[in-house]
Formats: sequence, C-alpha cells, structure tokens
Amino acid sequence: MPTPPLPSELDDFLSKPNPSVIATVRPDGSPHTAATWYLWEGGRVLVNMDESRKRLQYMRDEPEVSITVLGQGDDWYHQVTLLGRVVEFDEDALDDIDRLCRHYMGGPYSQRDRRRVSAWIEVDRWYGWAGGGSWGS
Amino acid sequence: MPTPPLPSELDDFLSKPNPSVIATVRPDGSPHTAATWYLWEGGRVLVNMDESRKRLQYMRDEPEVSITVLGQGDDWYHQVTLLGRVVEFDEDALDDIDRLCRHYMGGPYSQRDRRRVSAWIEVDRWYGWAGGGSWGS
Repeated sequence: MPTPPLPSELDDFLSKPNPSVIATVRPDGSPHTAATWYLWEGGRVLVNMDESRKRLQYMRDEPEVSITVLGQGDDWYHQVTLLGRVVEFDEDALDDIDRLCRHYMGGPYSQRDRRRVSAWIEVDRWYGWAGGGSWGS
Repeated sequence: MPTPPLPSELDDFLSKPNPSVIATVRPDGSPHTAATWYLWEGGRVLVNMDESRKRLQYMRDEPEVSITVLGQGDDWYHQVTLLGRVVEFDEDALDDIDRLCRHYMGGPYSQRDRRRVSAWIEVDRWYGWAGGGSWGS
C-alpha cells in the first residue's frame, strides 16, 4: 500500500464533503464501524465525536483506525481508504463540529449542550479504488 | 447494542443496493476498511471478494467484522451497522458475484477469469442511526 503524500487528484477528492466510514478496534480485538463526517486538512484527518460515543473510547485505548471515504451521491465507485493513527485529541472542540457542519451542511451545528471531542488522524498508508481498479497509485 | 432480529424497517433498508464499508482486523490488530457490495439474505450478510483481496486473508485469520451500510445517493444520514463474524466461506463463488452485480448494476459480472470467494456473516449486534438519533431501536 502506498504511503503519503497522496496525489493531487485524491487530495481534491478528500477535500469534498464526502460520506465516510471509520473503523476502530474494540478491547476484545473486534472491529467497530460508524459513518462519520471528516475534514481533510494538511494531510491529516479530523473527526469529531460526542463525548459519549463508544468509538471515542476505543480510539483512546487503541489509536489505530481506518477510514474509507466514498464519492458523493451515486459515485461511491470512487473510494479512498486511509489507514493511520489518532495522534491528538482536542477535548473541548465545539468549534470543530461547527467547521464540519459548515462543510457538510452549510451552517453551524445545532446542538450546543454536549461536549464534543476531536481526533486528529495521521495517515500511514492509503489506497484508492475506482470502478474496479486502483486509483491514484 | 441490540441483537437480531432487526425491525422490518431496517430489514427493508438493508435489502436495497446500498453502499457499504466493511472492516476487518489485520494480524497486527489494526483495522482495515474497504467499500463493498453486499446482499442481506435471511438475516445474514453475503460479501464476495477476488481471491487476491487482503481483507479475505484478514477474515480467515480473524472472523470478526463490522459493516456499515449507508443510504443511497445523498441519503447517507440513514445508516445501519452490523457487527458479527464470518461463519462460512464459499471458495468458488462466481455465481454470488453475479447475484451481487445484478443487485447493484442490473447484470452479471464481467470478469470471469478470476476466482471469487464468498463470505457469509452472522450478525451478533447492530445499531441504526438516522439524522442524529438512533434508528430502529
């Protein structure tokens, strides 16, 4: 699997408000997945979670994650998967969920009374896939 | 997290040709994700892979998987995640990739010269999510 940096075509793709699914590993070693908003900034992935989310605790225990980003609408035959590690948490990051919500929905996040935690993911390896073959490598 | 069976509304959702992402666990304990076609049949999940796919070997070593299914098009705010185990492989399953391809693309799979392996996944737990809240439980 290639290592960063990603080619500019995939960089552009990741900069869009795409659907994505993030996997974490639970204490018993089995995987857990959840759909998520993300931001692609400076070659790192930002995700943001309500403080009560199970995957937040899984990340704290085991920082390795994998995130698959799909093309928007019916274009999920374009896919990029990023394998990496959470390298930083921001424990009070309502500002980040606002940034994510603006990116995906065009406005700030409505729920203001819950603590939100951000996780920054550094990418170790990646692969792209488009219509049955490798994309970008 | 609830256990099967799933409510009929989610059963109907899973029966559609939705995008999905499956997570497996690699030998070093880190997660791996990939977008995949699936079929929801009799409360089990069928996926089918080219024999060369890394996630196939990961499943053989560690059968626990998690799959997040998204609504089609822009409706990925409907999501169902199924956590379970691969309970059966079919080592020569070109017929299954044809069934999957008909479900998603309306016709049989074009590539006939590669061995395809099916994996059947039994669901242990699940959760649904829709527009910021639990769905179906």
